[in-house]
Amino acid sequence: MKLNSCLTITLLLLCSFPVFAQTNQQKISAARKAGEQATMAEYLNLLAIPNETNDSLNIRVNSSFIQGMMIKRGITPEVFSVPGGNRVVFGEVKVPGATKTIIFYAHYDGQPVNPKQWSEGLEPFKPVFITAPIEQGGHIVNYKPGQAIDTAWRISGRASADDKAGVMCILNAYDALVKSKIKPTCNIKFFFEGEEEKGSPSLAAIFRKYKDKLDSDLWIICDGARHPTGKKTVVFGVRGDVNMALTIYGPKRPLHSGNFGNWAPNPGLLMVKLLAGMKDDTGHVTIPGFYDDVIPLTASEKQALARVPAVEANLKKELGIAQPEGGNRPLVEAFMQPTLNINGMASGNVGALAANVIPVKAEAVLDLRLVLGNDMNRQIKKVTDYISSQGYHVINREPTDAERTTYPKLIKVTHDAGYNAQRTPLDLPVAQSVIKAIQATVNYPVVLSPSTGGSLPLFIFEKELGAKVITVPLVNYDNNQHAENENVKVSYLWQGIETVAAIMLMK
Amino acid sequence: MKLNSCLTITLLLLCSFPVFAQTNQQKISAARKAGEQATMAEYLNLLAIPNETNDSLNIRVNSSFIQGMMIKRGITPEVFSVPGGNRVVFGEVKVPGATKTIIFYAHYDGQPVNPKQWSEGLEPFKPVFITAPIEQGGHIVNYKPGQAIDTAWRISGRASADDKAGVMCILNAYDALVKSKIKPTCNIKFFFEGEEEKGSPSLAAIFRKYKDKLDSDLWIICDGARHPTGKKTVVFGVRGDVNMALTIYGPKRPLHSGNFGNWAPNPGLLMVKLLAGMKDDTGHVTIPGFYDDVIPLTASEKQALARVPAVEANLKKELGIAQPEGGNRPLVEAFMQPTLNINGMASGNVGALAANVIPVKAEAVLDLRLVLGNDMNRQIKKVTDYISSQGYHVINREPTDAERTTYPKLIKVTHDAGYNAQRTPLDLPVAQSVIKAIQATVNYPVVLSPSTGGSLPLFIFEKELGAKVITVPLVNYDNNQHAENENVKVSYLWQGIETVAAIMLMK
Repeated sequence: MKLNSCLTITLLLLCSFPVFAQTNQQKISAARKAGEQATMAEYLNLLAIPNETNDSLNIRVNSSFIQGMMIKRGITPEVFSVPGGNRVVFGEVKVPGATKTIIFYAHYDGQPVNPKQWSEGLEPFKPVFITAPIEQGGHIVNYKPGQAIDTAWRISGRASADDKAGVMCILNAYDALVKSKIKPTCNIKFFFEGEEEKGSPSLAAIFRKYKDKLDSDLWIICDGARHPTGKKTVVFGVRGDVNMALTIYGPKRPLHSGNFGNWAPNPGLLMVKLLAGMKDDTGHVTIPGFYDDVIPLTASEKQALARVPAVEANLKKELGIAQPEGGNRPLVEAFMQPTLNINGMASGNVGALAANVIPVKAEAVLDLRLVLGNDMNRQIKKVTDYISSQGYHVINREPTDAERTTYPKLIKVTHDAGYNAQRTPLDLPVAQSVIKAIQATVNYPVVLSPSTGGSLPLFIFEKELGAKVITVPLVNYDNNQHAENENVKVSYLWQGIETVAAIMLMK
Repeated sequence: MKLNSCLTITLLLLCSFPVFAQTNQQKISAARKAGEQATMAEYLNLLAIPNETNDSLNIRVNSSFIQGMMIKRGITPEVFSVPGGNRVVFGEVKVPGATKTIIFYAHYDGQPVNPKQWSEGLEPFKPVFITAPIEQGGHIVNYKPGQAIDTAWRISGRASADDKAGVMCILNAYDALVKSKIKPTCNIKFFFEGEEEKGSPSLAAIFRKYKDKLDSDLWIICDGARHPTGKKTVVFGVRGDVNMALTIYGPKRPLHSGNFGNWAPNPGLLMVKLLAGMKDDTGHVTIPGFYDDVIPLTASEKQALARVPAVEANLKKELGIAQPEGGNRPLVEAFMQPTLNINGMASGNVGALAANVIPVKAEAVLDLRLVLGNDMNRQIKKVTDYISSQGYHVINREPTDAERTTYPKLIKVTHDAGYNAQRTPLDLPVAQSVIKAIQATVNYPVVLSPSTGGSLPLFIFEKELGAKVITVPLVNYDNNQHAENENVKVSYLWQGIETVAAIMLMK
């Protein structure tokens, strides 16, 4: 009897654990932990493959590696492509009895790199563990495979955060479910793109060509950064984005600044005068009509926005900012407006390479972020019209000799593919399900944002597939995304795996 | 008798040639031509030694090579130096009966190089013959040592024009005199400097330390370019020069232009607004008092200036300039005013490396040319005061965290050593002797210029040594001096040797 009753209690305990709210989560967490060393080894290998978005050869190597990751997890990879485009790696898991289908998206291409700008010892495609950002006093960990991985560490490397982290968390979330023997509640599809950092130029064509394969109730985009407080975040929209490249022409050859100074026009001077006229001292864009098309927020979007935790005081201190642009409005409010950012400008050389010359040209790259209501081509036209209004002859190729001697102000203006903004209504039932699933993994209110400041080509998902799209960012916000010293916190990767697994189990 | 009379005639002929006006010149020319292959081989070796002005190790190699060149010509080289400075290579030839002493100056250091900016196949320190500038359709000559050297060719390489050409022409002019057995009319001194391209920071100290060795009636500076018409040129003054480096600070780390756009201030925007305010649309500097100190030209200077051949129409066509700065004034008139040139500016990246970021800083390098009356420090103060008047907190080192969060406009301003302008009176007897000597070598009026647009530290020669200084530029004006694809025309080198030899024989 005694034995029997013990057994009964044990059986009761064993059987009752699964009905506690945390059990699936605990199982997933345990499975994730058990595979930690192998998962990390595989991720470091993925990060070691160069993935600059225009490096099509290496991009292909990345896509093959990801196919291998899927096969290892029992998913049969398919490759979607259109002529001239990088590959999409696709996979599908059908769950008996499931009535909903969710597609998880991430991109495996990365921004261009300038290795010289990375801190000493760091290289874009030699991932290493660091104790903290090097510029904040961190150092490289002398890590030996098999050694325990400190969750306070970061991994340094291009795309460690943006966005190979998405590929990593999605595939390992599914892996953790399989290893925990927990059945997803929905059919799952995987969609890993290789052209996001150049504006996803093939995405619309891929959607049209493979429309049948891409049927879904919801896309979950794993890209971007969690809220700066570190709280888990769900995002319902993104800004659109398009880049413009400007080149102003000076003398046909570089001239000695003494022998021609005061006589030959300096293209750098023309460029600073042109750019200076585009924004006022508060950062407000003064190009006519720049803000005209913006569609205002709905009531529930305004409400969500008001609940986003304040971060500005900390950010100002951390980033060394005395006075933000546009007065003291919250950061998230700034996201609700279009931008004109000077990504970069160059004329001649500075620093040790500076020479006393009148340079042959001045270049600038502008980034235009777009919000709901903006049209990419309309926004470009506003900027180009402004340039023309300043007396410039605008061309879209190198000038001829005749143009050079005819037009005192001569500029080449080009733009990349770009795309418009997108926003999914917060109140949609499937959106509410995602919020609940993620909310169940933490004991603080998940941050809900009507739109990120950043961009993804989600506009095309709606247009081509009629799809609903929600973004679930996974990585730390201080990841130096798009720049030198990009990094991801190890703890965010582990939590990211568990967040994605929770969505795969959403009710 | 017959034999005797033949001999007499021969002797008469041999004796009478030297009294013809052109004889010395012809002899020198013949000696120059006879040694052409060896002279050129030696020059190509000199150009192959890297000579960036801050590369002190290679600068030393250059100075040793020049010592060797002098020894080969029977001149005993001496080395002048002060702690921390690059060497001056000095030599002296005393001529029995000579009453005047002329010092010939050139510099063997060069401007910094950015090999990436050079045309394909050209490298700064791999001198090659080219048929014409590559950007004008020229090609590299597949030259074999010993092959005849076409005088239409150019030599491509850093310092091929500025200013190893000076060293080359001076030493080979003396060589041609020795080989022609023609005695110079003056004592000759040689002074080859290795720090000119960083503003000759040791020159004043060298002058003080070696004052006794440097006694002279005149310095002849072989640097700069002949008039764009190609006519031989004598210059009586130079502009002064000082560089200012500006760094405006943005966020402490590069920020995603979407996630922080419209909120984090962009240092590039601050820089374009600051620089745009310094000049008006015609290139006139609007910084208060910028032109106030200028000393007007004398009557004879104005007269010389008026006689300088017009070049503007050709230059506009050749350089692809539709409208020069400052209306339609002649180029040489522009030289009589101080300048503010944007040598270079940089923030983030452009082109293939451009990324969607708010950069951490924006940099600019300004070149201030100075004319008689300007003081370097006063001119710097005018610019710095202007920057302050625009709301900037000005520092001269990297900012502290406290400064970053205190000052919305924070700028680092530094400057290099620099120096003031110099002008020698045109009417000075020794100046007239030089003009006559050079005039005798050509059948067109030599161009006389009160001042170059370019700069040399000639101000120090007057101040420290009480010396008279005249500049005799030797190279083609389209030499890409200070920039990529620097080159010198072979014909100008040969003529340069003969010009310097003529000065060594001046009456």
